[in-house]
Amino acid sequence: MSDNGKSMSGSIAPVDLYERVTAQGDKIRTLKSEKAPKDEIDCAVKLLLSLKVDYKNLTGQDYKPGVPPTDNTSINSNGPLSTDNGDDFVDPWTVQTGNAKGVDYDKLIVRFGSSKIDKDLIDRISRVIGQKPHHFLRRGIFFSHRDMHQILDAYGKKKPFYLYTGRGPSSEAMHVGHLIPFIFTKWLQEVFNVPLVVQLTDDEKYLWKDLTVEKAYQYAIENAKDIIACGFDVNKTFIFSDLDYMGTSSGFYKNVVKVQKHVTFNQVKGIFGFTDSDCIGKISFPAIQAAPSFSSSFPEIFKERTDIQCLIPCAIDQDPYFRMTRDVAPRINCPKPALMHSTFFPALQGAQTKMSASDPNSSIFLTDTAKQIKTKINKHAFSGGKDTIEEHRQFGGNCDIDVCYMYLTFFLEDDEKLEQIRQDYTSGALLTGELKKILIDTLQPMIAAHQERKKQITEETVKQFMTPRKLAFDF
Amino acid sequence: MSDNGKSMSGSIAPVDLYERVTAQGDKIRTLKSEKAPKDEIDCAVKLLLSLKVDYKNLTGQDYKPGVPPTDNTSINSNGPLSTDNGDDFVDPWTVQTGNAKGVDYDKLIVRFGSSKIDKDLIDRISRVIGQKPHHFLRRGIFFSHRDMHQILDAYGKKKPFYLYTGRGPSSEAMHVGHLIPFIFTKWLQEVFNVPLVVQLTDDEKYLWKDLTVEKAYQYAIENAKDIIACGFDVNKTFIFSDLDYMGTSSGFYKNVVKVQKHVTFNQVKGIFGFTDSDCIGKISFPAIQAAPSFSSSFPEIFKERTDIQCLIPCAIDQDPYFRMTRDVAPRINCPKPALMHSTFFPALQGAQTKMSASDPNSSIFLTDTAKQIKTKINKHAFSGGKDTIEEHRQFGGNCDIDVCYMYLTFFLEDDEKLEQIRQDYTSGALLTGELKKILIDTLQPMIAAHQERKKQITEETVKQFMTPRKLAFDF
Repeated sequence: MSDNGKSMSGSIAPVDLYERVTAQGDKIRTLKSEKAPKDEIDCAVKLLLSLKVDYKNLTGQDYKPGVPPTDNTSINSNGPLSTDNGDDFVDPWTVQTGNAKGVDYDKLIVRFGSSKIDKDLIDRISRVIGQKPHHFLRRGIFFSHRDMHQILDAYGKKKPFYLYTGRGPSSEAMHVGHLIPFIFTKWLQEVFNVPLVVQLTDDEKYLWKDLTVEKAYQYAIENAKDIIACGFDVNKTFIFSDLDYMGTSSGFYKNVVKVQKHVTFNQVKGIFGFTDSDCIGKISFPAIQAAPSFSSSFPEIFKERTDIQCLIPCAIDQDPYFRMTRDVAPRINCPKPALMHSTFFPALQGAQTKMSASDPNSSIFLTDTAKQIKTKINKHAFSGGKDTIEEHRQFGGNCDIDVCYMYLTFFLEDDEKLEQIRQDYTSGALLTGELKKILIDTLQPMIAAHQERKKQITEETVKQFMTPRKLAFDF
Repeated sequence: MSDNGKSMSGSIAPVDLYERVTAQGDKIRTLKSEKAPKDEIDCAVKLLLSLKVDYKNLTGQDYKPGVPPTDNTSINSNGPLSTDNGDDFVDPWTVQTGNAKGVDYDKLIVRFGSSKIDKDLIDRISRVIGQKPHHFLRRGIFFSHRDMHQILDAYGKKKPFYLYTGRGPSSEAMHVGHLIPFIFTKWLQEVFNVPLVVQLTDDEKYLWKDLTVEKAYQYAIENAKDIIACGFDVNKTFIFSDLDYMGTSSGFYKNVVKVQKHVTFNQVKGIFGFTDSDCIGKISFPAIQAAPSFSSSFPEIFKERTDIQCLIPCAIDQDPYFRMTRDVAPRINCPKPALMHSTFFPALQGAQTKMSASDPNSSIFLTDTAKQIKTKINKHAFSGGKDTIEEHRQFGGNCDIDVCYMYLTFFLEDDEKLEQIRQDYTSGALLTGELKKILIDTLQPMIAAHQERKKQITEETVKQFMTPRKLAFDF
């Protein structure tokens, strides 16, 4: 899994991408004429090929030198890397938008071929669980799905499912955005009373980053603590590191190799933009993220049962992995996983800027002190308010682009209070400093409580969660 | 691992290959114009791409329509798929030669960049072990090596090594040719007193063949019995199925993923001829055959030791895997494996014909009865004798192309007796029927004894060999 709340920068129109391809071609010619080191040229060629793939996905046509795209250049709406004309770009490693409100999620649903989580579905979930739907559902934060009605049909007939989500442990530090899928998954686990598996893709991070195997595994264990601190039920939750579980499970590798037999390089090239210069580990990795979608990957939990359907709550950028998985599933006699997709978590600097683990000011980290939280929000949170108090009182602020307000939609559960804030900020009754203070007052105790829970987690508890074992549920 | 004693058919000159590429191109155009099924076209395109790679490896030039190779077309001597002008073709899946004597192994040594097992090395081995060298060494059946002097240097300083060999379990039936690496490995294990790991690549066979995971694993277990029946010491031997061991070992997957990070698709394309239409399982498989070359893949055997060098006895066609492995080794801080390469085991029909598991008459199987052995040899073994007894007595037979004589070089240990046979057959004193009888009398008791030993092997014994555990040795 990659990070939720990831890079969001710039916008891509066909003509922009065309110019990037052209410029990259020029750059390679220069490098070659200057007899640059082979590594450097290879790297530049790789980028060129990747840009050409993007261009083809965006326009449906091959890049041709000297033939820029016209207004009539069609947009390929099926390509997973495709982006709408001048709008957004979403794949597991990059999210780009030119809009301060963030990505246009309705367009993404059309492009990815998923379904909107509409009022009917939310009402149905509410009826089935006999509870108010989670505010992530009420507020459209989980906005898209695949096969949720099928999950609910089966659940109604006493055929339960299991949950699967994950995290790519690229560093010790997780930020509040990383919590979104886990907060929602915990809620799903509680209201449906179903088992959960959490994959930590330390092998992915080893392959993609400049990390040792040992370091990647260490990050996985550290991240597991933050995940456990979200409050998962140890009797119903199995957390695993790929590097560890691959060598422990009698079922996991068998499913990995089954998926690997049914996906060609051509397919992963189309879906993920891999090139011939990519290592064979990256090329075959999608099978490893696919395998936990099948209950037979967990014989310790599900015994001989290969037919238990899986529901995957994840950020929408992970969907390419699971479209591939759903394509393979019937060919290896497994049920297709269902999905619920979340929106991206915005960076402090705004929904169209890049949230980066290497920039501590781009988000609130789970290790931040109360003081750091206060300073970051006051200093860095992009405001939808006006420049002066007078103007603000007169014209009001813009909640659609205000990051503090966006964060509150994630973390302030009280609907009425949130609505009051929206009205007051929009009218100008609430000042930017006051809005920031509400967010600070919301996040400080939330993160302090998280840190307190994390402190209580012993090595023994981590080991318990990470031991393959029978979980408490009836199938 | 693929099969030893594999397909040997035809010869390839650049001009022949050029014509095959051209014909394949024509075929695809015809298929497309006839709107043939997509599968069929894809398959034809795949073959075309593969032929083009072969052509480039053979000639060092890209295939250009209308430009046939000239006599000056240079031969690329580094390409692992390369073949000498009009001569042999060797990769892990195909061995081709036009010569009834078989592949020209001296040329193969030059092309692969390995070293000849010369008299000096054989004498040195003999001195170190204080015994007569194995007849596979005396007779040039193990003819090529990499780093054997380094292995012996270290061994002299009390730094032992471990042995690694393998088998691709593509069916239940193994033939006598499959025994060659195991007979030699058993001897190495005895005379050097070192541990051995045997990899059964059931995952490879699942990926390449029309087999289920369960069937491939079942073949692995069945083949393990034949391997055990060769007489390996259970206290010093670990046999493993990939499908099984991947989910049991804390070290294996970590090394697989390390190798996968350091090999690109471009590299495996060059080495193994993979194309974009190949599944990602095949593309990443070479890392799985590489990993057992590193002692850290077996923490159950070697504990924390990552520095124990590996010696791989195998048929020469497996060398591409281990050239790749040796390339990666220093980059992941592991010693390069040393190798000893064997020649191919000829089919009954002759050294240039194809030995096929689906043709029961192409070899002697370990399950054959005494009667079947007799019939096969009498009916199918290609003879170097003359057409009539009179001619044979007058001109003598040709041992260089006689399959019975070749088989005796593998299985008749007595040098004097073998030399006497050679002289008598060459002079015409020994008739073809008599030579066949000698081979029958050699193979019948050998195979009966193998079957008897195999019958004694219980499930319990197989389990013992296949359980990851400490082995008896001092490092």
